[in-house]
Amino acid sequence: MAAPVNPPRGMRDFLPADKGRRERALATIRAVYRAHGFDEIEAPALEESARLHSGIGGDNEKLAYNVLKRGLTDADLAAAADAGDPLALADLGLRYDLTVPLARFYATNQAQLPAVFRAIQIGPVWRAERPQKGRYRQFLQCDIDVLGEPGAIAELELLSATTDALAALGLTGVQVRINDRRILNRLLATWGVGDDAAPRALITVDKLDKIGVSGVVGELAELGVDTSGLDDAFAQLADAGWDLLVDPPAWLDADAYRDLLALRDALPSVDLVFDPVLVRGMGYYTGTIFEIAHPRSSSSVGGGGRYDGMIGRFLGRDVPAVGFSIGFERILDLLPESAAEGTALALLHDADVPAPALLAAKREAQALAGRVRLERGRKNRKAQLDALAAEGFTAFATVTADGLGEQRPLS
Amino acid sequence: MAAPVNPPRGMRDFLPADKGRRERALATIRAVYRAHGFDEIEAPALEESARLHSGIGGDNEKLAYNVLKRGLTDADLAAAADAGDPLALADLGLRYDLTVPLARFYATNQAQLPAVFRAIQIGPVWRAERPQKGRYRQFLQCDIDVLGEPGAIAELELLSATTDALAALGLTGVQVRINDRRILNRLLATWGVGDDAAPRALITVDKLDKIGVSGVVGELAELGVDTSGLDDAFAQLADAGWDLLVDPPAWLDADAYRDLLALRDALPSVDLVFDPVLVRGMGYYTGTIFEIAHPRSSSSVGGGGRYDGMIGRFLGRDVPAVGFSIGFERILDLLPESAAEGTALALLHDADVPAPALLAAKREAQALAGRVRLERGRKNRKAQLDALAAEGFTAFATVTADGLGEQRPLS
Repeated sequence: MAAPVNPPRGMRDFLPADKGRRERALATIRAVYRAHGFDEIEAPALEESARLHSGIGGDNEKLAYNVLKRGLTDADLAAAADAGDPLALADLGLRYDLTVPLARFYATNQAQLPAVFRAIQIGPVWRAERPQKGRYRQFLQCDIDVLGEPGAIAELELLSATTDALAALGLTGVQVRINDRRILNRLLATWGVGDDAAPRALITVDKLDKIGVSGVVGELAELGVDTSGLDDAFAQLADAGWDLLVDPPAWLDADAYRDLLALRDALPSVDLVFDPVLVRGMGYYTGTIFEIAHPRSSSSVGGGGRYDGMIGRFLGRDVPAVGFSIGFERILDLLPESAAEGTALALLHDADVPAPALLAAKREAQALAGRVRLERGRKNRKAQLDALAAEGFTAFATVTADGLGEQRPLS
Repeated sequence: MAAPVNPPRGMRDFLPADKGRRERALATIRAVYRAHGFDEIEAPALEESARLHSGIGGDNEKLAYNVLKRGLTDADLAAAADAGDPLALADLGLRYDLTVPLARFYATNQAQLPAVFRAIQIGPVWRAERPQKGRYRQFLQCDIDVLGEPGAIAELELLSATTDALAALGLTGVQVRINDRRILNRLLATWGVGDDAAPRALITVDKLDKIGVSGVVGELAELGVDTSGLDDAFAQLADAGWDLLVDPPAWLDADAYRDLLALRDALPSVDLVFDPVLVRGMGYYTGTIFEIAHPRSSSSVGGGGRYDGMIGRFLGRDVPAVGFSIGFERILDLLPESAAEGTALALLHDADVPAPALLAAKREAQALAGRVRLERGRKNRKAQLDALAAEGFTAFATVTADGLGEQRPLS
């Protein structure tokens, strides 16, 4: 018996049933996004190290897999050892998200893209995370972004395309939580948080789900915030929802307020919830932020926001941008079993049927069924038929030297 | 003006038109392979270095991109510098083909797979090749393999699925050249090439297209082969085709001969040409080998063969195997322009139309067309309409604050 052989730690093999589910879901998402006027693009999985480590990627930069330069000399190795800097040996890295590559792609190709560019990107990303349940070191991201549109129509197109895609997948009961970084920034200012402390304060507020109001208030106090009355303020904000906007408090950012109301009114069919303490992690958001919640998932199943200052980093001028990422791996777990894909016919045969007769029978059967598999008949016919049915086959027939027998249903 | 920004050297960005072509072709290939009873699987893009460098990958092993270990210490760096061995710093690598990952996947999962497993694998591979025209450092491979079937039905299923897939893509005029490694081995033996020299002799014969008969005969002479009469022998072999099998020479391997005839007779609709000096590069082939030729491509557009000794390398027991790889990147260049995807409607609007009105018009238009894009109207309307037509849009309409205007065709 050979030693066990596994995929690299934290990475997964997809067997046929899983891979089929994944590809069917992706085909659905792609079709909806395309119908909404988005265009798919693809950038390489590798990018230059300098771009991956330019600060855009936030904490994810530390998780990048770095690729050894080719043709390293002994001198290169010695220099890296002297400097204590393994990254000096790497010139490329695997992408840890699809946003940094999008910024690079746009800088490279924008002369050939429409003035408002609606991008679909679907592909794997890699992060050297500590493996744990539900966290993988290679996983699929599924992003749409609107580049070049400063107005709220970008948010509306993203939200309607995403909620349509989830509906097409059969996922019901999704709720979109929404906020605006401008609202959060003004809120922090009223709490006396200065610009310097704001990023850390946002990281703290982002932990509300995990550490609760008392935990957040405690950490804010450590940052020097006057936290008297903050417990009550959090409770009010969390409960308020859209009611906060009925009689808007003085600190509410007027532009953000108007934009959120417009989004709500234009999306009557979306369960859109205003959450004034929704943060989302990334530092680059500048405006609206949104997150998709589902009752059967403890963490969000998608999210995004506006990040006007970032996409032009490699281009040398700012480009308004807003994006939405579906949490593909999490959503897959929530989907109903998809229906069978039409007739699938298993052809059972003995070992002595000549290969040309098998091929001829398969050809004949392909006119009768969308999918045909040849399989040698086993002694335990019942177990074999059960296994075929479990794999999605709907019928079987036998093949002998005389040809193809009659089709019989597999229940 | 910012400095030019490009994808990593030898790697490509795919703009919407290219990406669309690629995805449509892949959807066609997937559908045909599935109809033929093949099942798609996916392995991670990274594999452990030890597996990538186990000898299965042949010359491609040298081209692997190696990934730095995480958490390298100064001592690790110093040790690698002392040993002059950068690979000591890498634990993972990017796959350079889909065959090594398939062998690993099969060893990991074979208890959950059917006795005869028909695999589809579609995904990128990476090779640190010297960039040159038509050679990329990331490219897509598209493989089918039959594992666990020693008989010729495996070859028949592969060849019929592959030729059906190419036909479904609209690629006509393909020719399948076929040979058997057993025939080549016997041929070399009649030329007095010993087992030791056989691998090098095969590499030489494989260069026939590039260096011609005189070049091959010269190199064989350097290997110590008695080359008297070899020029004539090559000419006869190259011209013979199936006629060689009418009155088979004494050295012809009888099993291989019988198998090839059976394949030919079972595939009357395939343009199958017997080429007794077809080699294909990889060292692991043990039986039939095949290659797809197309009159508009100077190199082959696909190929494969039987490699019974290899797939079980990580499993500890041999598993019969035969595979076929489509040269996806080359085939794309040969395909006819694909037909438009139905109605695509561009909605032109002025800057002052409110976002909710734009979204409402888009929703209304989505009932009329498979694909809808909002676009701000430009001064040069004719140029804008031409550009939309070139992108595949078939009609346009204007959107004002009053709503959606009438559809007009875009020629």
